[in-house]
Amino acid sequence: MLIECIPNVSEGRRQDVVAAMADAVRRVNGVRLLDFSSDPSHNRSVFTLVGDAAGVEQAVLALFERAVADIDLRTHKGEHPRLGAVDVVPFVPIEGVTMAQCVELAKKVGAAVAERFGVPVFLYEEASTNPARKNLEDIRRGEFEGLAAKISAPEWKPDFGPSAPHPSAGASVIGARMPLIAYNINLATDRLDVAKKIAAAIRQSGGGFRFVKAAGFKLEDRGIVQVSMNLTNYEKTPIFRVFETVKREAARYGVSILESEIVGLIPSAALAAAAEFYLQIEGFKPDQVLENKLRQT
Amino acid sequence: MLIECIPNVSEGRRQDVVAAMADAVRRVNGVRLLDFSSDPSHNRSVFTLVGDAAGVEQAVLALFERAVADIDLRTHKGEHPRLGAVDVVPFVPIEGVTMAQCVELAKKVGAAVAERFGVPVFLYEEASTNPARKNLEDIRRGEFEGLAAKISAPEWKPDFGPSAPHPSAGASVIGARMPLIAYNINLATDRLDVAKKIAAAIRQSGGGFRFVKAAGFKLEDRGIVQVSMNLTNYEKTPIFRVFETVKREAARYGVSILESEIVGLIPSAALAAAAEFYLQIEGFKPDQVLENKLRQT
Repeated sequence: MLIECIPNVSEGRRQDVVAAMADAVRRVNGVRLLDFSSDPSHNRSVFTLVGDAAGVEQAVLALFERAVADIDLRTHKGEHPRLGAVDVVPFVPIEGVTMAQCVELAKKVGAAVAERFGVPVFLYEEASTNPARKNLEDIRRGEFEGLAAKISAPEWKPDFGPSAPHPSAGASVIGARMPLIAYNINLATDRLDVAKKIAAAIRQSGGGFRFVKAAGFKLEDRGIVQVSMNLTNYEKTPIFRVFETVKREAARYGVSILESEIVGLIPSAALAAAAEFYLQIEGFKPDQVLENKLRQT
Repeated sequence: MLIECIPNVSEGRRQDVVAAMADAVRRVNGVRLLDFSSDPSHNRSVFTLVGDAAGVEQAVLALFERAVADIDLRTHKGEHPRLGAVDVVPFVPIEGVTMAQCVELAKKVGAAVAERFGVPVFLYEEASTNPARKNLEDIRRGEFEGLAAKISAPEWKPDFGPSAPHPSAGASVIGARMPLIAYNINLATDRLDVAKKIAAAIRQSGGGFRFVKAAGFKLEDRGIVQVSMNLTNYEKTPIFRVFETVKREAARYGVSILESEIVGLIPSAALAAAAEFYLQIEGFKPDQVLENKLRQT
């Protein structure tokens, strides 16, 4: 069983504090710290762990212990919106584990966080128990500064813990989701309006694909524009469909695609699906991928 | 280190003999028998093993021991061309191993086979020591029945063992090669001449791509035709280039591609390369594939 977990923590400047959290994770058995990185302007760090359910659970609790001790939201400033010391904790199914098991794990960890640290916990995405509280952005709106007022309303009663923020650690959002793909398409034009119109057309909020978040940006140094996206469920909204739609929309403005880029990691199944689509491969099964076959046996 | 080895054995009818060979492989440490299958009309079986160099070496020798004892080419009949009891043994680099190491392994196993069983061995493909003896088809031409005459000529002196066939086990062809992809493209037409012309245009022997073998076939039951291919080096002749060329050639006859199919296994890198091509992904690195990253760390 392999679960990925990507805790986002509200500290990106004091490197000793971040290093202590990384060490706390590394001391846990059954989990590996794949990567961590800090953004000083966001004042935020992102940890990437993988392991089995027990290992990932223990590692997240160890991370909470350090974060609650070392981070005080009352003095925290940064560009990125945040609600708590450990701001967001998604569990992601990778191999030999179902989404339902990741949802169970999110609930178990959420209950333990509330119990051990007195931090209120909201469940989000697949673990959400309330359609109005599925999206991270909705839960986080108002941020730490608005939390005391928000959480006292009945519709914002947390899933676990008290109906009041932890004084220094705020609240945490814990849940389960599919692997996220950060995907950018660069257009052979400097017209920002074209990138913005395409982004609006393809994202869910604009009436586009269900699992696409998108925005248009200017890449000043290169004199071109970019449609920057998060694909939040590559099985249901596959990358090739997004690419082809962007290409078609761009053509309507006489613009062509210069290139695209994957930022960070992508599951091999997402690449295989694109190959299947373009090569018109019928009847393909995941265990025909040599590496999958080798892992199974 | 992971090496794949796919011995082809000249027995596909007596299932007890095939099962005894599979058991002999299974008893070896450091190697796994992923799969084996027999074709009665070819009277031939194909075993797929993976393991480290020592494990794969021992497994192949164990397979030879049973095959030399149980198979007699003097009474063997089947539709598939063959030279020996263990007809062909390719070693394929999969992970953490170079082609050069697989070539060394092929030579080591070849020497051991000649020494222990008195079977002459020809080295082929990447392990070949003679450009005229690189292709399996050239080595196997004349088959077992023509071997005694062929092998006595100086240019067909085997790389290991005597210049005469083993009386019952013939000779063996051992070597190293890239993973082979069996890839078929079905055309939306019943015109066999179109499939044959396209096959001739894209295969190496017809002036086409260096690492493509191709033939045109009729799929009688479906009333369509197929371009059936082996891609022998997917890094140098990638699958997407072959697909696009077949599509273009078919269009010249007013024919479109109905579908394609991967037969058996395909390395994930071959699918990733197709996704990169069609999605115009720039700067992609293999360790951005989530599963690769997980395996490394």
